[in-house]
Amino acid sequence: MSLNGLLEKSPATLPILQATFGLERESLRIGKDNRIAQTDHPACLGSRSFHPYIQTDYSEAQLELITPIAHSTKEALRFLGALTDVAGRSIDKSEYLWPLSMPPKLCEKDIHIAKLEDDYECHYRKHLADVYGKTLQSMSGIHFNMELGKDLVASLFKESGYHSIIDFKNGIHLKLAQNFLRFRWLLTYLYGASPIAEEGFLNAPLAKPVRSIRNSHLGYVNHKDIQVSYESLEKYISDIEACVASGKLIAEKEFYSAVRLRGSKQNRDYLKNGVTYLELRSFDLNPFDHRGINQETLDTVHLFILALLWLDSSSAIDQDIKAAQALNDKIALSHPLSPLPDEAPASEILTAMQAVIDHFHLPDYYQDLLDKVSNCLENPELTIAGRLLENIHNLSLEEFGRQKGQAYHDYAWQAPYALKGYENMELSTQMLMFEAIQKGLHLEILDENDQFIKLWYGDHIEYVKNANMTAKDSYITPLIMENKVVTKKLLARAGFPVPAGQEFSDKDSALRYFTQIKDQAIVVKPKSTNFGLGISIFKEPADLTTYQKALDIAFSEDDTVLVENFIAGTEYRFFVLDGKCEAIVLRVAANVVGDGKHTIAELVKLKNQNPLRGRDHRSPLEIISLGDVERLMLQQQSYTPDDILAKGVKVDLRRNSNISTGGDSIDVTDIMPDSYKELAAQMASAVGAWVCGVDLIIPDKTLPASKENPNCACIELNFNPAIYLHTYCHEGPGQPLAPKIIAKLFPEI
Amino acid sequence: MSLNGLLEKSPATLPILQATFGLERESLRIGKDNRIAQTDHPACLGSRSFHPYIQTDYSEAQLELITPIAHSTKEALRFLGALTDVAGRSIDKSEYLWPLSMPPKLCEKDIHIAKLEDDYECHYRKHLADVYGKTLQSMSGIHFNMELGKDLVASLFKESGYHSIIDFKNGIHLKLAQNFLRFRWLLTYLYGASPIAEEGFLNAPLAKPVRSIRNSHLGYVNHKDIQVSYESLEKYISDIEACVASGKLIAEKEFYSAVRLRGSKQNRDYLKNGVTYLELRSFDLNPFDHRGINQETLDTVHLFILALLWLDSSSAIDQDIKAAQALNDKIALSHPLSPLPDEAPASEILTAMQAVIDHFHLPDYYQDLLDKVSNCLENPELTIAGRLLENIHNLSLEEFGRQKGQAYHDYAWQAPYALKGYENMELSTQMLMFEAIQKGLHLEILDENDQFIKLWYGDHIEYVKNANMTAKDSYITPLIMENKVVTKKLLARAGFPVPAGQEFSDKDSALRYFTQIKDQAIVVKPKSTNFGLGISIFKEPADLTTYQKALDIAFSEDDTVLVENFIAGTEYRFFVLDGKCEAIVLRVAANVVGDGKHTIAELVKLKNQNPLRGRDHRSPLEIISLGDVERLMLQQQSYTPDDILAKGVKVDLRRNSNISTGGDSIDVTDIMPDSYKELAAQMASAVGAWVCGVDLIIPDKTLPASKENPNCACIELNFNPAIYLHTYCHEGPGQPLAPKIIAKLFPEI
Repeated sequence: MSLNGLLEKSPATLPILQATFGLERESLRIGKDNRIAQTDHPACLGSRSFHPYIQTDYSEAQLELITPIAHSTKEALRFLGALTDVAGRSIDKSEYLWPLSMPPKLCEKDIHIAKLEDDYECHYRKHLADVYGKTLQSMSGIHFNMELGKDLVASLFKESGYHSIIDFKNGIHLKLAQNFLRFRWLLTYLYGASPIAEEGFLNAPLAKPVRSIRNSHLGYVNHKDIQVSYESLEKYISDIEACVASGKLIAEKEFYSAVRLRGSKQNRDYLKNGVTYLELRSFDLNPFDHRGINQETLDTVHLFILALLWLDSSSAIDQDIKAAQALNDKIALSHPLSPLPDEAPASEILTAMQAVIDHFHLPDYYQDLLDKVSNCLENPELTIAGRLLENIHNLSLEEFGRQKGQAYHDYAWQAPYALKGYENMELSTQMLMFEAIQKGLHLEILDENDQFIKLWYGDHIEYVKNANMTAKDSYITPLIMENKVVTKKLLARAGFPVPAGQEFSDKDSALRYFTQIKDQAIVVKPKSTNFGLGISIFKEPADLTTYQKALDIAFSEDDTVLVENFIAGTEYRFFVLDGKCEAIVLRVAANVVGDGKHTIAELVKLKNQNPLRGRDHRSPLEIISLGDVERLMLQQQSYTPDDILAKGVKVDLRRNSNISTGGDSIDVTDIMPDSYKELAAQMASAVGAWVCGVDLIIPDKTLPASKENPNCACIELNFNPAIYLHTYCHEGPGQPLAPKIIAKLFPEI
Repeated sequence: MSLNGLLEKSPATLPILQATFGLERESLRIGKDNRIAQTDHPACLGSRSFHPYIQTDYSEAQLELITPIAHSTKEALRFLGALTDVAGRSIDKSEYLWPLSMPPKLCEKDIHIAKLEDDYECHYRKHLADVYGKTLQSMSGIHFNMELGKDLVASLFKESGYHSIIDFKNGIHLKLAQNFLRFRWLLTYLYGASPIAEEGFLNAPLAKPVRSIRNSHLGYVNHKDIQVSYESLEKYISDIEACVASGKLIAEKEFYSAVRLRGSKQNRDYLKNGVTYLELRSFDLNPFDHRGINQETLDTVHLFILALLWLDSSSAIDQDIKAAQALNDKIALSHPLSPLPDEAPASEILTAMQAVIDHFHLPDYYQDLLDKVSNCLENPELTIAGRLLENIHNLSLEEFGRQKGQAYHDYAWQAPYALKGYENMELSTQMLMFEAIQKGLHLEILDENDQFIKLWYGDHIEYVKNANMTAKDSYITPLIMENKVVTKKLLARAGFPVPAGQEFSDKDSALRYFTQIKDQAIVVKPKSTNFGLGISIFKEPADLTTYQKALDIAFSEDDTVLVENFIAGTEYRFFVLDGKCEAIVLRVAANVVGDGKHTIAELVKLKNQNPLRGRDHRSPLEIISLGDVERLMLQQQSYTPDDILAKGVKVDLRRNSNISTGGDSIDVTDIMPDSYKELAAQMASAVGAWVCGVDLIIPDKTLPASKENPNCACIELNFNPAIYLHTYCHEGPGQPLAPKIIAKLFPEI
């Protein structure tokens, strides 16, 4: 049975692009001295014994970032970006990740085998050191894993005439591997990015830059006497097994081909279970992208793989592969600006790529990608190696590597509240995801718009929405908190201070109540409104007429109206988790403080330079405006925006203290007396809340709080308090809450 | 210190009406033979050892309904109505509650002392039988408990000049008791409703009807030699203690005054703790109200009590009380139409009631009440006893009692899905409240509009919203079910059948998906819409243009669009509770079935006579309309409303099967194969749901379901399934789910 022409005879409607992807990226940690870091793998990255995403490869300083299976290249790259972000902010702040495949100058003694718990893995690495030397092991690269989509494979299988799906899968994957080895020189030409080796790396230094040392025979390859045939799967398996049996290889996985068949631990199992995916191992780190690879590369490679499937198989495959190997080595060791050798069968692969685009009516994007490939073939200076040339000084890329590495490191620390690639999600969820990835929990986004994620460790699964809605709270608890009247009843009965007051469903009884509140500051409000509509506040006692008017206003908004005592004091948000108050924030209205030099308008601009300030709730604080509301507020205080404010003079720009209108958040966790923290925690427990935002009004926090003499009142309990609010504050240290939530959800890690 | 003039000098703004109330109503169960029931207290009413609301009084057949403390007379009466409703539907269907204070004809041997667990209570009842005879114990009445509001008492205390709040409370309550005994004759006149005793009840039968045997010396009173002074609280206590010490009374509670001081178990404790409320014991059952007392009576008595506080105290109280006792006895034993005796100080009490109204500017309602009292004083035929006269035949009220009792019994069984007085709440919540009351759980409505209730037994509290949202579900579970994409992902991964399909956030990818669904029936729908907006269903495969149009429509409603396989079959709702499917309902479109006689319009009318049908979701089924939609539907089937339908011919009046548009609910729990029930239960467990409505499409339910061969698909999981839907069905037995929920919430009862 031949797989030749299989795509050609398939209908144009085949879901040809359906596939899943996974990326693995290695990168060296670099220390203060711009040399390979001598520090241990960061403790904050959890345990390497189970971390699914961030591991160490060969050496202790060599991070390996591994994405989970993704349903698109975009998703895979996005996750790699997040892993890069987490890794960048997890390593010591003085370190950075080396952006190049070739390491900076190093001594073999500075390379320490990764301190893994697994004895076999340590033994394996020691063996590699003996056989290949530690220096060679410090090269880094990217592995690209791809599995054809299930529907695609099923449709192709139907077309193929094969009887066994296992045979069919082995057939197409072997064909893909064969053709990959025949045409991998194209990837070396386009993406080769290891043009030089720093002093001391090679025994015989190269006189001038090349395309890819790593993809040449100087790279990390098996000894010459290890020869494996790709003629058939059976032969491929037996050859590798023979090498292991004879001791030429310590294990099957020591066979370093540029492409690996994947899906089972032992090669022989493929005969029974079938190959499920391919691992392409030839990618040098692209130093022009902080993730080491970019979107266009991934999609070009995807198209390239489909073209490999389109192409006919070779009839003399081992011979062809040998020739292709030589061609690849030649291209790898050519000067970056040298043209493609004449013998390279460029038109064959380009034609196949074009055929796939045409036959399956792929979107224009793929045509653009192919055009760019053609362009690069004609203009070697457009390839990565070509672009690197100008950064090579004295046959060294160290300066360039340092600059880029530091720039990417700075990028990771820019907007440290965000998880790169996931900035459209809520900040609190981004923080929780960061923490989950860092600690080595499995993470899946179930619904991005709904902030719905799944976290798991072994069999233990936790679903989380909005970073704090979990199985830890019972369903009735948020329902209690959602209903202000019920909340108040429960708190009051449990003996906690809430503003005295009453609920009225008719104006008559509400009016009759006047006698009881006529000497008090009160709030008249509709029972269920969240936007301040229909609320009247009387800080001085109201007269009957005004009270009546306030009732009319409130009743126009709701059938039920609350009349409550107004409590004067400062409002604080207490964040309670599992019975303990973990953070307290004070929110104050947008304001500026004078320095005796700048005008108010200038002070606003200066204050807005704080990287924590942004727009549309994508940052912990919002940009302060100088709009009509703020100008009116200034005017009422007899200021203009052009007034220079004396040193230390504070001017409010808003009456309301919302963060969304430029207000400041002040972390007061450390200065709030414990008695208030305990009271807030008890209030949350009174409604059974695991997570709870307790809003307390405190007239004087120097007075101690107790249930008997509260010296405060609770005006609201929130079942969805934002954790970011407490973590990145305008003032005060900030309280990292995501780690605490993760630790509570997964006490076992 | 005198309490005279205390109200007069109080400001008009005093919260004078503030008070709490409690009612206790006794009633005899009557058997098939219209005699006192010989059956045991109904088992469905749970255990009398803890039931807070429904107890037995003296005899096994004498129900006592006890309301919790209510903040208004309206609330107290409403709860009494609910208790009456629960009691009425809990006793054997052939029994009913006797609506009169005086029992029907009875033999002493038919009166069985209540079978209580408490030995002391049994002993006490045996003693009463010895002293007073069982017959006398079979009279029933209503006790009215009232506590003045806390703010009211606090304000009065401030005005009073008293130094001790305990002394003050004892002072006003003693004054109220004194004045009550001086003026109780007014209540006997107005509300006396025991005009005759059936044959054999009295040793010396009365020759003609009177006002109130029960409130006369012929009623249930202590022996003459028991004399207790009301001069001071100390004297009152000592006198009662002396009676107990001398054995004249078996216990303090055997002192049967028409008014009791309440708040402590032992009278002497009042000196330390203060009296907190009054118990007025003089009310005969008003047979013209199914609850035994009506709103006007309660509010008139409230005003009467305030007038007792307004009135000055007597300087020779024991003497005055003795005279008032005699006056009361005279009025009680007068003919119902006889005028008030001249010596009755009517103007004194009426003037005081008027003074309270005037001084505190009470609403017009209270003036109306007082006017009615005056009117009754002039027209005795308007009193309850007066109105009963015409129903007395041969000095018997048995016929009247039977008719009224049966009518009230029928009323309880009318709309048995509802809880009388709480019909504005959701049906499911009404059912759960009924069940909770029946079983003897404490019940409090925390928020009526929000269907938020609190149930408790001892220290065990459960909060419930919408009858099924409880602490039994974790918060994340409803959030999972609320999100259709997340639900589908979780079900599919757990191996359960969901319609195959995909989610798209751009039209391009959705169009590309066409190739995979071009031969299939599909549904194109916006991700989040609940009202059917933007949904296109293709039961036959769509062509590309139509598919494109459907995408446009769906994308106009949401950023994300789902394309799913359409599953043909019948949709069933499976109700799963705690891992077990407890009920299944099939909903079919509004329809009529011909009988060969009636027109379609007549058939609709006939069908609408089903008491289960009503309007606005206040009944389990809705009235079927014959509006434009239904007429068009008929027309499309070539019918007119005036066509007579042949026997057995079924005509649909709607395309949609919603209950809200007159659809039928069919309980198929008993005929659904177990394999589907098990699959539905497993699906609910897969998302961790305690309560869950599983919507399954089943093409052919004769085929067995299994995870491997589901023969069905789940199209939705509902976190708030209505329990009433399964309980009262158009067809099929119906499944009572409220008892199962209660049993799961409170396994200990």
